[in-house]
Amino acid sequence: MDIASLADAVQRGERRAVARAITLVESTRPEHRAQATALLETLARTGREAIRIGLSGTPGVGKSTFIESFGLMLVEQGLRVAVLAVDPSSKRTGGSILGDKTRMEQLSRSPNAFIRPSPSQSHLGGVARRTREGVALCEAAGYDVVLIETVGVGQSETVVAELSDIFLLLLAPAGGDELQGVKRGIMEAADIILVNKADGALKPAAMRTCADYAGALRLLRRRPQDPEGFPKAMTVSALDVSGLDVAWSEICKLVEWRRAQGHWQTRRAEQARHWFQEEVRQTLLARLDSPQARAVMQTLSGQVADGQITASRAAEDLFARIWPEMQPTNPPESLDAATDTP
Amino acid sequence: MDIASLADAVQRGERRAVARAITLVESTRPEHRAQATALLETLARTGREAIRIGLSGTPGVGKSTFIESFGLMLVEQGLRVAVLAVDPSSKRTGGSILGDKTRMEQLSRSPNAFIRPSPSQSHLGGVARRTREGVALCEAAGYDVVLIETVGVGQSETVVAELSDIFLLLLAPAGGDELQGVKRGIMEAADIILVNKADGALKPAAMRTCADYAGALRLLRRRPQDPEGFPKAMTVSALDVSGLDVAWSEICKLVEWRRAQGHWQTRRAEQARHWFQEEVRQTLLARLDSPQARAVMQTLSGQVADGQITASRAAEDLFARIWPEMQPTNPPESLDAATDTP
Repeated sequence: MDIASLADAVQRGERRAVARAITLVESTRPEHRAQATALLETLARTGREAIRIGLSGTPGVGKSTFIESFGLMLVEQGLRVAVLAVDPSSKRTGGSILGDKTRMEQLSRSPNAFIRPSPSQSHLGGVARRTREGVALCEAAGYDVVLIETVGVGQSETVVAELSDIFLLLLAPAGGDELQGVKRGIMEAADIILVNKADGALKPAAMRTCADYAGALRLLRRRPQDPEGFPKAMTVSALDVSGLDVAWSEICKLVEWRRAQGHWQTRRAEQARHWFQEEVRQTLLARLDSPQARAVMQTLSGQVADGQITASRAAEDLFARIWPEMQPTNPPESLDAATDTP
Repeated sequence: MDIASLADAVQRGERRAVARAITLVESTRPEHRAQATALLETLARTGREAIRIGLSGTPGVGKSTFIESFGLMLVEQGLRVAVLAVDPSSKRTGGSILGDKTRMEQLSRSPNAFIRPSPSQSHLGGVARRTREGVALCEAAGYDVVLIETVGVGQSETVVAELSDIFLLLLAPAGGDELQGVKRGIMEAADIILVNKADGALKPAAMRTCADYAGALRLLRRRPQDPEGFPKAMTVSALDVSGLDVAWSEICKLVEWRRAQGHWQTRRAEQARHWFQEEVRQTLLARLDSPQARAVMQTLSGQVADGQITASRAAEDLFARIWPEMQPTNPPESLDAATDTP
């Protein structure tokens, strides 16, 4: 299949074509990269835009069940839903966590849903790019909502926050009245905190936890991109499918407000700038994977390990040998400008 | 002062020269970098080696007091001690945390101690390099022990673990019998866990906490680089200066064993390889700071933000314009090799 046909099929929303296109953007081979770039360029012309919802939460809070229930609700409302995952740790755990589609069995059976297992090989830069391009492909395919789930911790949350229009933080009811170990940065990135498992015996605990977080959110300064009352905390039960409709209507309210106020477009433009810079960094670093660079690095690496040469001299040698034109050319200056005299 | 004279003064252990040399390696100007590389190369020939001790612990566990007491004890034994800090977050907090030398007032007054405030500007790659080179300078200056303190959290701990021969984790007595929120990775990197504040009313709690961690450490698999009984947990009081001598003799025991078994040299060689790769990555990324690259990036960044061009195409354009010789040259191949047919 050529790129033009693939682009057409993606635009028609054919799920197999979307899966194929994602595999293409995930490929690290230079010739595939060129094709991926061409494909993304063609598809960018559709100008289609989804609501990109980032979803974070520690293991055990019920993310899969939430995505299943929330996704099915949206599908029943006639929306088309895509689910992607960011999982920089999947290398260690030996595979895709979302790979097991039975995790979202009903949703994955719906013709209006697309679930992409997380790629199994990964360094963070690569994962971020692939996810970002996966989101772009889903938008071009006409999905109305793209759910981007963080699997793993730490930096993947930052990646998702930088990818999404709306960032949801899913929490479980806490045992006591103590806030769970949520990092401040994540809390500050959240637009809506959803305390899940507000069902059965856990319901009172969920309501208390929700009140605690609502209190904590009130302590944060209101952000310019938020209308009155946001960010907010609310309870949901993915199991009982309760509160999900309210959560969705809050999301829609936020989207409408941000669109009307111009924050939506500003944020998308900022994110685009950020991703371009990341793309440049990753593309540059990928040059180190060339056979020539690898060979020189291996030799120098051995010399550094033996103490024959310092790491900084070895790095200079490397660049002088493989990319001489990239050397800094500034003439040496007096040392005194750099050093202090304590 | 020229590089040869500076190198001589550093080798004579003159503290002002060491401070000056560190300022030079911290400079980001290309001409200073060339001088720093030359200086480090000259000094590498001394072949001097210190015991590099990494020290991590959340705020409030008493790191400064520990360094003060522990450093003074070593100085009293006739050893020369250098203290460096890794603080990638100092940019945000607006300055050097170690800058306030009164934090370690007595130690800083000793002629056999050298305390370096953490640099105030930082991105992680830069901080890691500067710290690594600072350690090398302190070794060349004949310090017997280099204490590398993590300030801030997360990645700085990884940096310190990759820099040190011995990694200490300092903890405070826990309120209950529960393990504090220590990340598994940090716990696994620790050679010795020191439960501080084993003094006064906190002593029983410190002993309980120590027992808890000792139990947790027994659950970890024994590492090939450890003799019987390591990693271990012990109590200390930096305030009462108790347990510090025992901690130091355990450190020496570990150092001797690892030297005798060959693990010491293996680890240093692995670390050197790692730092060389990091150096290459950082040197490469630093090329993006050239005025030409910045100008092209700014233009393209605006076009990406406006949606005129995709991030991946813009990155390709950038490299084609400023470093055409770095472009990947592999010929395009069939798409089918990359894509799957689900």
